[in-house]
Amino acid sequence: MEETFVPFRGIKNDLKGRLLCYKQDWIGGFRAGVRILAPTTYIFFASAIPVISFGEQLERNTGGTLTAVQTLASTALCGIFHSILGGQPLLILGVAEPTVLMYTFMFDFAKYRKDLGQKLFLAWMGWVCVWTALLLFLLAILGACSIINRFTRLAGELFGLLIAMLFMQQAIRGVVEEFSNSQRENSSQTTLEPSWRFGNGMFALVLSFGLLFTALKSRKARSWRYGTGWLRGLIADYGVPLMVLLWTAVSYIPAHDVPRGIPRRLFSPNPWSPGAYSNWTVVNEMLYVPPLYIVGAFIPATMIAVLYYFDHSVASQLAQQKEFNLKKPASYHHDLFLLGFLVIGCGLIGIPPSNGVIPQSPMHTKSLATLKHQLLRNKLVSTARKSMSKKSNLSQLYRNMQEAYNKMQTPLAYQIPSALGLKELKESTIQLASSTGYIDAPVDETIFDVDKDIDDLLPVEVKEQRLSNLLQALMVGGCVAAMPLLRKIPTSVLWGYFAFMAIESLPGNQFWERILLLFTAPSRRYKVLEECHATFIEAVPFKTIAIFTVFQTVYLLVCFGITWIPLVGVLFPLLIMLLVPVRQYFLPKFFKGAHLQDLDAAEYEETPVVSYRMTFEDQDIEARTTNIDGGEILDEFITRSRGEIRHMQSLEATTSTPSLDDGKPSFSPQMAWRAYSPRVSQLGMELSPEVTGEELQLKQTPSPGPSTPVGQSSHAPSSC
Amino acid sequence: MEETFVPFRGIKNDLKGRLLCYKQDWIGGFRAGVRILAPTTYIFFASAIPVISFGEQLERNTGGTLTAVQTLASTALCGIFHSILGGQPLLILGVAEPTVLMYTFMFDFAKYRKDLGQKLFLAWMGWVCVWTALLLFLLAILGACSIINRFTRLAGELFGLLIAMLFMQQAIRGVVEEFSNSQRENSSQTTLEPSWRFGNGMFALVLSFGLLFTALKSRKARSWRYGTGWLRGLIADYGVPLMVLLWTAVSYIPAHDVPRGIPRRLFSPNPWSPGAYSNWTVVNEMLYVPPLYIVGAFIPATMIAVLYYFDHSVASQLAQQKEFNLKKPASYHHDLFLLGFLVIGCGLIGIPPSNGVIPQSPMHTKSLATLKHQLLRNKLVSTARKSMSKKSNLSQLYRNMQEAYNKMQTPLAYQIPSALGLKELKESTIQLASSTGYIDAPVDETIFDVDKDIDDLLPVEVKEQRLSNLLQALMVGGCVAAMPLLRKIPTSVLWGYFAFMAIESLPGNQFWERILLLFTAPSRRYKVLEECHATFIEAVPFKTIAIFTVFQTVYLLVCFGITWIPLVGVLFPLLIMLLVPVRQYFLPKFFKGAHLQDLDAAEYEETPVVSYRMTFEDQDIEARTTNIDGGEILDEFITRSRGEIRHMQSLEATTSTPSLDDGKPSFSPQMAWRAYSPRVSQLGMELSPEVTGEELQLKQTPSPGPSTPVGQSSHAPSSC
Repeated sequence: MEETFVPFRGIKNDLKGRLLCYKQDWIGGFRAGVRILAPTTYIFFASAIPVISFGEQLERNTGGTLTAVQTLASTALCGIFHSILGGQPLLILGVAEPTVLMYTFMFDFAKYRKDLGQKLFLAWMGWVCVWTALLLFLLAILGACSIINRFTRLAGELFGLLIAMLFMQQAIRGVVEEFSNSQRENSSQTTLEPSWRFGNGMFALVLSFGLLFTALKSRKARSWRYGTGWLRGLIADYGVPLMVLLWTAVSYIPAHDVPRGIPRRLFSPNPWSPGAYSNWTVVNEMLYVPPLYIVGAFIPATMIAVLYYFDHSVASQLAQQKEFNLKKPASYHHDLFLLGFLVIGCGLIGIPPSNGVIPQSPMHTKSLATLKHQLLRNKLVSTARKSMSKKSNLSQLYRNMQEAYNKMQTPLAYQIPSALGLKELKESTIQLASSTGYIDAPVDETIFDVDKDIDDLLPVEVKEQRLSNLLQALMVGGCVAAMPLLRKIPTSVLWGYFAFMAIESLPGNQFWERILLLFTAPSRRYKVLEECHATFIEAVPFKTIAIFTVFQTVYLLVCFGITWIPLVGVLFPLLIMLLVPVRQYFLPKFFKGAHLQDLDAAEYEETPVVSYRMTFEDQDIEARTTNIDGGEILDEFITRSRGEIRHMQSLEATTSTPSLDDGKPSFSPQMAWRAYSPRVSQLGMELSPEVTGEELQLKQTPSPGPSTPVGQSSHAPSSC
Repeated sequence: MEETFVPFRGIKNDLKGRLLCYKQDWIGGFRAGVRILAPTTYIFFASAIPVISFGEQLERNTGGTLTAVQTLASTALCGIFHSILGGQPLLILGVAEPTVLMYTFMFDFAKYRKDLGQKLFLAWMGWVCVWTALLLFLLAILGACSIINRFTRLAGELFGLLIAMLFMQQAIRGVVEEFSNSQRENSSQTTLEPSWRFGNGMFALVLSFGLLFTALKSRKARSWRYGTGWLRGLIADYGVPLMVLLWTAVSYIPAHDVPRGIPRRLFSPNPWSPGAYSNWTVVNEMLYVPPLYIVGAFIPATMIAVLYYFDHSVASQLAQQKEFNLKKPASYHHDLFLLGFLVIGCGLIGIPPSNGVIPQSPMHTKSLATLKHQLLRNKLVSTARKSMSKKSNLSQLYRNMQEAYNKMQTPLAYQIPSALGLKELKESTIQLASSTGYIDAPVDETIFDVDKDIDDLLPVEVKEQRLSNLLQALMVGGCVAAMPLLRKIPTSVLWGYFAFMAIESLPGNQFWERILLLFTAPSRRYKVLEECHATFIEAVPFKTIAIFTVFQTVYLLVCFGITWIPLVGVLFPLLIMLLVPVRQYFLPKFFKGAHLQDLDAAEYEETPVVSYRMTFEDQDIEARTTNIDGGEILDEFITRSRGEIRHMQSLEATTSTPSLDDGKPSFSPQMAWRAYSPRVSQLGMELSPEVTGEELQLKQTPSPGPSTPVGQSSHAPSSC
């Protein structure tokens, strides 16, 4: 995205890019069929559960003025509007913790003013929302989001980890509070006895750890060894909701022996309870707010605007990380513009506004990548099976699969060459066949193992569409009506779920992986290399990695500390925005440019020339896609433990020496070795060039006749 | 072992074999230095904790006549005598559940006879012990243990799994009982309230699952990626005791808020409490037992003798499984003979006798294998490092390592060629060097990665000595004095430990692995092949495996059901002994001989000719070891998850077609492929011959110059 501040240009570009694929956004969603429900329910739970919990928090803090009904309504309404009118449908909207804190502070301020008080609080917040919206319009129109590319990995991943810490903090705090006296009105006298409090706390530990453990396990069900395929798929897709149901059921097992209120359960009024719907007509009261307060509302509005600008953009950015290989353009300005309207709308009906949320937004993209993977895989497997039953040879098989693959590709208005994934597929299978001498023979399962090979060959692709976002928003809306059912969920299951969300957001975060690397024993670092790993591990000396990571960790802890300070805490995103100048002017004084590029691989500086820029002007799209199509894929990794997504890194991304950019066709493992070996040795690891070459080529190009006696095969260190 | 029933010949042979290595048994133990403490404490906990729990059970069932003091004393005394005078020092002795059940039944019988009563119970049991011992002497002298080889894997593994089930049952029952009213005298009135019972139960769940989970994790610490080597080693070696301490400490966290008795803790009188030591002089009362009861004691004695004969022998057998590559001979007859003396001794001082226990005995061997592996590894690594710093080439390096290896070998009186492990080492490293062209160059870490290569090349060897057994017995004895400390351990930690022992005994049990195979999805069965796997998986059709396993499972469940029947239950070993004729006369009618051989690989029929017989006559030892020395090792696997032991299978063991036995030198991967491919396809798995060949040779013999473009390396399916 170019850095331009010409008014409206950002919004115009966004609209131009997204309108081209708008129709496909819907068609693609419906084409996915019933399988779209898997990512939908997954995100629905990730969206609804925190929002309900924030609603409970708001209820305590605002004396019942706002409840889970309002937070759910806001999340649902904003979600519906965003999924239909928004630019980037991968972005998930919801009421977030900072909003809750802001509302709490504002309420504490308002309730003691006799010309405002609890009565006019929502009306006054309406004015705050109006001002906030105006500021957001201004930011969107002036192209403020075009500096989003300056939010490098450094800032984004730090923010992601901070959110994970806050979620985990909430989980721990929640479980600890289960041991103390409940401040709820619905708790009976019996449950306040020390003995029952102790029992409640211990039961909460069991339920929350039970949920956390089983939810984490269920996400990996697809790679389980036991059980039939459909069962494993079902558990992987719907495991988390199922586990919430399961542990809610478990919480009813001792129902005979324990008094009502053990374990504590979610508490929220029904939307039809008296007083629960007074907020909807708040617009009538807005003119009763004294003019001084109307003007004064501008001050909190600036803070909220900054917060939303940052949160919304970074959530969107994290949902569109490079590893996902998204094909459709981003839409930062248009989305911020739309957010302005949503904030006004929420303000006028007296509900707290929603904005883009982390980690739900990247979770959404990940779950859609899994979905797309399954859809592509099923299609290709059935095509390959059909071809093989017709005794076709390998090139026929390939042609059929290519056709099927092309049909599955998003038919975008601007043409992206769609043979990306297939080129690979062809090369590797044909090479396999020619090396085994089976090129013209009918293909059978020994040459092409349908189930396995296709699985391994498919690149990461995300099912980019609007349906899952719309559906999850509708389901969140449905929660308002289903309040009596939701109240059956124990709060401790909620805390377990918070911990689950914190942990789910960690894999793929390079900052987190670098922290782990610091704790990895030097003698075990080779294991990191043996697995999928980011470039920096080979390209940057360990000491530099360590210093950079320690700096980032200290910064993270400072940010975390800030959130504990009552009022200032809400503005922790400002501290993260401060990372932009720190990154640009301060860090280069301490780190080599090449190292920074590897450690903090954001688009805008990773590649030297314009052809790699992520602009969505037509000619640039072509340049970009051609480069990918060039296909010097060096490093592709499957992160089965990360929700079964595979990442692909093009050569441009993995080397920092520009000279290699031109040497595409002649690039060989030896070259790769030469490029890497000095770096590898910096990590203190030993790896002979030949062994590496062999490992790189392993399994793709088996030599026709192995001649080593079996005896030696017994020491293959990785065979077990 | 030959099947001979000539009186005393079995005992004589045993003594002959073990006396030759008796001195080395002690020297070897002391040479291991402080590291011997790791297996010692590991086994001490595995030995003491169940014995304490059985003691509590006995106390409840015998009205306080016998307590944990007596069971601990028996375990300690018998352990000390066995470790010094016994034949097989790997065998661990202890008071076992069947003994407890037997004593309980006898007490229930005695307490209502007015001429016996609770007062003369122990005296009468003294007579039972005398009769039992006489029967054991008879069995030992007549060579009854020589039929031990007829107890095939079928019986041994079924027995092992049954014991695991009983341990798991005790764990579950224990945790469930934490929710109900304690039958202890030390529980105060408060703790009987429903609220505190509920809290106690939930706390018990937390503590027991906490212990189970952390203990299982800590056993794998050696392969963790994080933390320094010594810390990982410490956790792996002492993790289980540490976790017992940790969770005992955790149980004191809510001490302020909860009444005494929450959570429930171990309860046992101090050995110096009044009445706790009346048993020691029981021999004085034995003559007061009416003669009719003295004679009648013969009937229960036969049952106990059969039980001990079976238990003791099978525990010893499981501690000496083939995978452990033990070098010192077995000693079934002598050990049974000694057990007779121990039973008399225990009877005369009024404590329940001990016998060989499962799973502690195989756990002991496994932990000693880990120890030996560490010792060998450290020595070889330091030797290799020294050689490399002197710039020696590969053959010099090899010569130095050979020397060091030989020095570490047990210098037995009968000569075993000690180059077994090293031949392998030489071949593979030299081949690696020649293929990379570095044969004469000074060795550096690229050719020979000291840390990694040595680790992968060492075979399983067990530190066979007497010290660990003696020390653990002494420590169990120390428990009697440390009773006030032991009483701090919560009972729930105990239940977690029972579950831990049950789970720890599963890996390596082929019966268990076959049960898992039944639940493995057909499309995932190739994963089993990709890992370490037993021969039968390739050699036997899946359907046959399934039928055999289902039969065995049904038999297991019948045995498990029997244990629930009050009196008959004690005799469940008889049902398992029944498996011997079933295996010999019944099963061959339903299964092919070759399949049975693979599924139930016990020595006596696995190999057709005498040279493979596991007799410990001198000439046979030579024949056996020469064959291993021949070194056609096809399948070696590291079971890091199984306590870091590696199993080795010689070619003789892994092929069932005798013709291959003669083709040692010319055996090549292609041949292996041809031999296996029809079998592999029986499992419904696809694997091309070439790919397999390549995989077999993988990493050992990297070709000098890889010529494939890097592009293709991106699909290596196993690279991640």
